[in-house]
Amino acid sequence: MSQNIYDNQAFFDAYGQLPRSVHGLDGAPEWPAIKAMLPALNGRKVVDLGCGYGWFCRAARELGASSVLGVDLSAKMLQKAREMTRDSAIEYRQDDLNSLTLPGECADLIYSSLALHYLPQLESVFQQAYQGLKPGGWLVFSTEHPVFTCSPHQGWLVDDQGNRFWGVSDYQAEGERQSDWLAKGVIKYHRTLGTTINCLLNAGFMLRHLQEWGPTTRQIARLPSLAEEAQRPMLLLIAAQKPGSRGDEE
Amino acid sequence: MSQNIYDNQAFFDAYGQLPRSVHGLDGAPEWPAIKAMLPALNGRKVVDLGCGYGWFCRAARELGASSVLGVDLSAKMLQKAREMTRDSAIEYRQDDLNSLTLPGECADLIYSSLALHYLPQLESVFQQAYQGLKPGGWLVFSTEHPVFTCSPHQGWLVDDQGNRFWGVSDYQAEGERQSDWLAKGVIKYHRTLGTTINCLLNAGFMLRHLQEWGPTTRQIARLPSLAEEAQRPMLLLIAAQKPGSRGDEE
Repeated sequence: MSQNIYDNQAFFDAYGQLPRSVHGLDGAPEWPAIKAMLPALNGRKVVDLGCGYGWFCRAARELGASSVLGVDLSAKMLQKAREMTRDSAIEYRQDDLNSLTLPGECADLIYSSLALHYLPQLESVFQQAYQGLKPGGWLVFSTEHPVFTCSPHQGWLVDDQGNRFWGVSDYQAEGERQSDWLAKGVIKYHRTLGTTINCLLNAGFMLRHLQEWGPTTRQIARLPSLAEEAQRPMLLLIAAQKPGSRGDEE
Repeated sequence: MSQNIYDNQAFFDAYGQLPRSVHGLDGAPEWPAIKAMLPALNGRKVVDLGCGYGWFCRAARELGASSVLGVDLSAKMLQKAREMTRDSAIEYRQDDLNSLTLPGECADLIYSSLALHYLPQLESVFQQAYQGLKPGGWLVFSTEHPVFTCSPHQGWLVDDQGNRFWGVSDYQAEGERQSDWLAKGVIKYHRTLGTTINCLLNAGFMLRHLQEWGPTTRQIARLPSLAEEAQRPMLLLIAAQKPGSRGDEE
C-alpha cells in the first residue's frame, strides 16, 4: 500500500501552488520531452496512472485519444480532476497503483508522470501495464531519477574551491526514503536505474528510449532557476513497448 | 582518434600495479557480475574490444569459445598480452575502436571492459559491433558510470553533519574530461546514461540487462575499501542482443 500523501490537506494545498498545478503541462519543464516520446494518439485508448488533476487526460483527448482512464489514489486529486473535466470520454477511478487491475489488452498507451517513486514496488505495476496493453502498445513514464532519490540527506554541497555539487550517497541501498517536500514525512522509494530497467524488461517490455531529463538553453534563459537541473539528473523519462503489432498499421 | 594513454610509459607502469593487472579477472570486483551476464560461450566466436593484457580472451577460451579476437590501441598492452598467451585460437590486433572494421555477421559475443569511456564517440563502435555480430549475438560491456565521470572536479565531500557524498555536477554537459588517474592528463568522455542507451538502441540492439555495479556484502567483508562503491555507482554493465535467431538453437 502506498502512502496517500496527496490527501494530506497541507500537502494538497502546497501542491496546488506548484507551477505544474497552476499551469498544467505547460508548467512542467519536462513536458515537451515527454510529449516527443509519445506515440500518435489519434483514435487510441489511453490510461494515466497517477493522473492527479487530470491535465494529461485532457491533453490526450486534445491529441485525439478516443478514451482516457485516469487512475489516482487521492480522492482530493480526483475531485479536482472531475471539477476541471467536461468530457464523457474521460473516466476517473480511485485506486492504488500497486493493487490495480486493468482490463486485458485494451490500452494503446499507458502513461505515468512522477508517480512510480511513491510505490513500494514496481513489479506489479509493470506486469499490470503489460497485460493491459494491446500488442505494440506503449508505456511512457517519468519518475524521479535515482541520483535525486538516493541520499537520505538530499542536497547541494560546496567544496573548498567554491564548486557546487549534488550529493550522492547510499545509491545501492534501495528502499524507503523520507523527505519533507511540501509536507513532513513524505515517503518515496529509491531504486537504482538498473532495477527500474530490468523490472521493465522482465515484465516483457522492450526499451525504446531513455532520457535523463535536463533543461534546454532556451528553458534556462526563460527560467534561470532551472539551471541546476543541468548539474544533476532529477527526472528519468522512459518509453517502452509491448512486442507485437497492433494489426491496424502498415 | 582516441588518446593512446596506455602506451604512455608512466601510465603503463602504474596500470601494471593494479589488482586487475596483477590478478587478472579475479582482481576485478565486477567480474562475477559481468560473467553472469555472458551467454554460453561453448563453440562460439568472441571479440574483445580493448583487450589489454588479454585476460578475458584467455578466460573466454577456458569457457569454451572456439576463437577469440582481442583488439587494443596500445602496442605495449598487446605485447604483454602476446607474452601471456600460448593459444593459436587467440588473435591480437592493434586498432582504434573508433575506426575498427570487423568482418560481417561473424561473432557470437562482442565484449568490452572499461574501454568505451576513452572513445570520443559511441555510434561507430556500436554500429560496427552490430554488423559484426551474427543475428542473436550478444554485446556485453562495462564502462565508467556517468555519475562517476560527470564532474570536472571528481571527488568525495563531507557536509556539516559529517555525512559523506560523491559530488555530482555538469551531468548534462557531455564531452571530454581530463583526470590525473595513474598519469597526468588522461582523457575520458562523459556521456549521460540516456545517450549510451539510446545510441545502443539506435544501432539496432535490444537492451537485455543493465546493472549499475555495486559490491556484495561478502566482497566488502573481504576488501573493506570496496564499501564506498555502494555509495555511488562507478561502473555500468550492459548486456544487449542483436535481434534474430542464430539458427542453431532450439
